[in-house]
Parts: sequence; C-alpha cells; structure tokens
Amino acid sequence: MATIAVIGSGAVGGYYGGRLALAGHDVRFLVRSEYEAWRANGLRVFSKDGDFHLREVQCFRDPREIGPADWVICALKATAIGEAAELIAPCAGPGTRIVALMNGLGNEQRLAERFGAARVFGGMAFVCINRGEPGVIHHLDYGRVSIGHLGDDPAACGELAALLRSAGIDTVVAPNLRYARWEKLCWNVPFNGLSVAAGGVGTKTILRDAELRAFAEGAMRETVRAGNADLAAAGSEARLDEEDVVARMFAQTETMGDYRTSMVIDYALGRPLESEAILGNPVRRARELGVAAPRMEALYALVRHADLARRGERRLLQAGDLAVPRSVV
Amino acid sequence: MATIAVIGSGAVGGYYGGRLALAGHDVRFLVRSEYEAWRANGLRVFSKDGDFHLREVQCFRDPREIGPADWVICALKATAIGEAAELIAPCAGPGTRIVALMNGLGNEQRLAERFGAARVFGGMAFVCINRGEPGVIHHLDYGRVSIGHLGDDPAACGELAALLRSAGIDTVVAPNLRYARWEKLCWNVPFNGLSVAAGGVGTKTILRDAELRAFAEGAMRETVRAGNADLAAAGSEARLDEEDVVARMFAQTETMGDYRTSMVIDYALGRPLESEAILGNPVRRARELGVAAPRMEALYALVRHADLARRGERRLLQAGDLAVPRSVV
Repeated sequence: MATIAVIGSGAVGGYYGGRLALAGHDVRFLVRSEYEAWRANGLRVFSKDGDFHLREVQCFRDPREIGPADWVICALKATAIGEAAELIAPCAGPGTRIVALMNGLGNEQRLAERFGAARVFGGMAFVCINRGEPGVIHHLDYGRVSIGHLGDDPAACGELAALLRSAGIDTVVAPNLRYARWEKLCWNVPFNGLSVAAGGVGTKTILRDAELRAFAEGAMRETVRAGNADLAAAGSEARLDEEDVVARMFAQTETMGDYRTSMVIDYALGRPLESEAILGNPVRRARELGVAAPRMEALYALVRHADLARRGERRLLQAGDLAVPRSVV
Repeated sequence: MATIAVIGSGAVGGYYGGRLALAGHDVRFLVRSEYEAWRANGLRVFSKDGDFHLREVQCFRDPREIGPADWVICALKATAIGEAAELIAPCAGPGTRIVALMNGLGNEQRLAERFGAARVFGGMAFVCINRGEPGVIHHLDYGRVSIGHLGDDPAACGELAALLRSAGIDTVVAPNLRYARWEKLCWNVPFNGLSVAAGGVGTKTILRDAELRAFAEGAMRETVRAGNADLAAAGSEARLDEEDVVARMFAQTETMGDYRTSMVIDYALGRPLESEAILGNPVRRARELGVAAPRMEALYALVRHADLARRGERRLLQAGDLAVPRSVV
C-alpha cells in the first residue's frame, strides 16, 4: 500500500484520492475551504459506479503535517500552478513521484523546475464530476485517466498505472505525455475557448451555428498542427492525425448534448479561468514553433480579456454609459 | 436648387439633410419615430460648426407623399437595407440618383438590383454625431463625406460633390467606390468587430491589451488583402498600401481616447448590429476571392452570435444555471 498526498481536494482530487483510500492506500488530503466538513463527516462520493462514504479521512490544512509520501497527486486548478511547488515540497521526499492531474500545457514542466523531470508525471482525467455540498462529490459520467511521464520512461508509467488500477481506476498509458496533452487540447482549445469567448455557451450552440462551428474546427486544426510541430521538435515519432482528430472529436461532441466546459462553468461562477494553461501556453508554443494559429490567438485574447473583465479588472460598456454616444464611425 | 428625398432621418440623414435644406435645397425627410416632434418644432442641430434651427421642415411618414426627387439620400442603418428599395422607389423617377450614406459593403449593389448601377452612389461619412431628444441632433466632431459612383463615372461624382459642397459639406471624391468602402472597412472590421466581440469595450481597451491589439492588427491586414483582391478582381488599378493603412489607422485610433464604435453603441443599447454589412459581406467576399481571413471570420462569428444573444434569440449561461455543473473536461 502506498502513501499518497493529494494536493488540491476539489472534485478531481477528492474523487480519485477517495478511490485510492477506499482501496486501502494511505491517502492524505490537503483540504482548505472544506476542512471542517471533511473532518466532521468524512468524504461522501455519489458515483455512477457505486456510491461510497469514507467516514474517517486523513485531511490536513498544511502540507507540512502531511509529510513525505510515495506519490503526490497534484489536482489543483492550473490557475494555482504558481503555488503548487510550495504546497508539494513538504510532501516530496527523495523518492517521491508527482502526478499533475491538471488541465492544459506546461504544468509538468513547472513542477520539473523544482522536482526534476524524472519524478514528474501528467494525468488527463476524462470525467464528468463536480462538488456538491462540502465533503460531497458527484461522479456523473466517464472516469478514465490517461497518463504520461515527463521523462517518457515506460517503466515509471507502469508503476503509476498499477497504482491507479489497484483502485479500480480505468487507466491508459499515452504514447507520450506531450501527445496526450496536445490531444486533449485539440478539444479544450476550441470548445473551452469558444464557450467563454461567445459570452457563455454550451457545445450545442457552437455546433449548431455554422460560423461558430467553422471557427471551432479551424482552431482545432491549428491545435493539431501546433501539437505535431511540438512533437517533431521534441524528436517524437508520434503524430496527431488531423482528419481523424476533427472527425472523432466533433462526433463525440455531437453526443454530449449542450455540454458545459469547465471553463464556461468557472466563467459563469466568477472563478479565475485556466486561460494560460489551456490557451496562453499553447499559443506561445505555436509562436515559438512558427505555426500559424490566428484562431487560437483570437480565443486566447478574448478569453484572457473576459477573465479580467469578469474579475472586475476591466469594465465593459453598459447602456447607461451612453447618454451621449460619440460615434457613427 | 435640387429636390432631395432623405430616407432615414436619424443622426446622419438629419444632419446632412438639414445642411442641404439650410442651403436652400428642397429637402423632404422620411421621418418615422420622431415625426410629431419634427412637425411641431422642426429640426434643431447643435454643431461644432455653428448651431442652426429649421423651424419648418418638410417631413413625411410615407415616401409616396414625398414623390420623385432629383436625389435620394438613403441614410438608413445597413440593417434596414432589405426594405430600402421599397422606401426609395416612390421617390425614384427616371432621372433620380440615389446615394447610400450607409456603413459597410454591399449596400450600393443591393440598391443597383432595383435602380441600376448608373444611378447609385455611395457616401462614407466620417463624423461624430448623435441624436438628442426628438428633433435634435448633436454634431460633435469631423463631418467629411467621401463619395464614389457604383459605375465609377467621374462626371457623375462631380455633380454629387457639387451638391454637397453647395451646403458647405466637406466632400472628397474617392479613387473609386470599392476602394473607399474597403478603406473604411480596414478600420470598421477590427475595431467595430472587436468592440462587440470583447463584450463591449472602447478602442483604448483594444490598443492597451497586447493580445487584443495584435488581433485587431491581424484583422486589419486581412481586410487590406481582401480589399486589394476585390479591387484586382474588378480590374481597378487602385490598391490599399497595407503598411500605410496599419500605421495610419492605429496612429489615428491612438488619438481617439476610449472611442466607442457605432457597433458597440448599438450593442449596448440593444439595437440590431450592422454585422452583415461590416463583417458578413466582407467575409463572404474574401471567401469568394480565396483570401485567408480567419480573424475576420472569427469576428463575424462572434458578433453575429452576440447580436442574436442580445436580442434574446440565444441564451447565455448564467451562474444560476449551474446548480450541478456537469464537466471538468
């Protein structure tokens, strides 16, 4: 049984950490906003795969109380990547391995600056899940985790896969981490981006509007090309098949109903957006590689602006501002 | 003295029609929403070039009461182009010439379908003007009108220029109508488009945000290229100089303060947007010509969507919709 520190006990950290604890691993959660509730009532998960309730949960307010672990699962929002290393450090002994179970591009690289590439993994969770009242998580659909090792060591991936599978988590080892990150971005860039750039819409609105749909497809194709250029630059043989990605992801999205991306949910709830991880970092990488990405850039510019406006750092024009409109240009 | 029918007596029609009436021309205004006020109090213009008050104004609710005129000045919003020909027809005798004093691309062509290219002109008003209370117009700045003939007949342009100059209107004859329309679009596409696509902002927000500014510049360069391809396809020698247009228009915009485009004013006031004239028609022309215009397309998709949402034809996601957010994709 492994000792596992879960840093960031939102829906993702709570759900996967809970499954690992249920399987008998020594799981220690860093819990901040919901600490009292976890302490009093433990962690309750309502899951389409069967509900469970952990009456006693090891939860801590400070990672120094957690101490060194075999594995650290970092499930913070990508917007918190700046503080991640500080929160992980007290749990990272010489042999500790770290999994960034986060959205977007660049999280593993940031963690490697502090802990070294050999110890850092990435996990992509394909799951529909959300927090209910404090200490309660609703697991609604899916659940697969795709993993990769920043150093691309297959043996290291095998150990992580075995750990997750020991808790009944459907786990897939990706060809490599870079490939897995860009493949997920092929969906997140157009759909997370447009869901906010269009002022707050679900996937159905994007698919049903010919111009928005064409914009999404164009952004997806740019993401495939940027990803393949990044793979080539890294000396990887793996490539994303542009036509296959477009056909597959649009077909999958058609079955989702009026699906709400995590970014549009954060936007509607006034939370900070994962703009840099999902859009800014891919855009900057595309620029470094000389890949034309005007639609990705447009989405980044608009989502970044929407985030600033939503958080009150920019003011949008209101009808009341227009007592004397000053233009017919 | 000429007989002039002004179709669409908003700020632009009222202001330029008022100047022509002040100069002694027989000007007949089609006035709808403000008819009673015009009838009772005439037309009052507060202008930086000197105020004037026309106590008796010839205003009519129905163009059939106006009858055939020497000139028709169509100053409707481009959103009303569909009904323009019907409103103009009763004022169009065999010798009547028609001036589309409107925004965007395609208005003259629509009028030519009914009246023939030889009789149709376009006017681009560079003016800061707005309606005050009914029957009152505030002319705040600028005032120049650039004109072109749909048939590119210089002699015909000379007569229109003489008419406008007879009323003291600063008038410039453009190299050709197509050139003048695209040159104005080089500003309208990026700045009108982004002012709404970014949720309602002035020009200052666009210029101060490096990503939004780069988006605007990219969209302006696409507009120059589409315009030059359109000029070439029409056999015109005239060309827009891309570097000159970008340098000049950004320098001018820097001096505007936090300028509000007509489109963002319409958006903030919940009026229909001139999306098709300013974005949709240029985008479709660029596609016909095979000119890559991803940023123009992105602006069209988002502004068209924003217009539908603002007018209640689409619903944007609200925090209240998210009792159970269904995603961490």
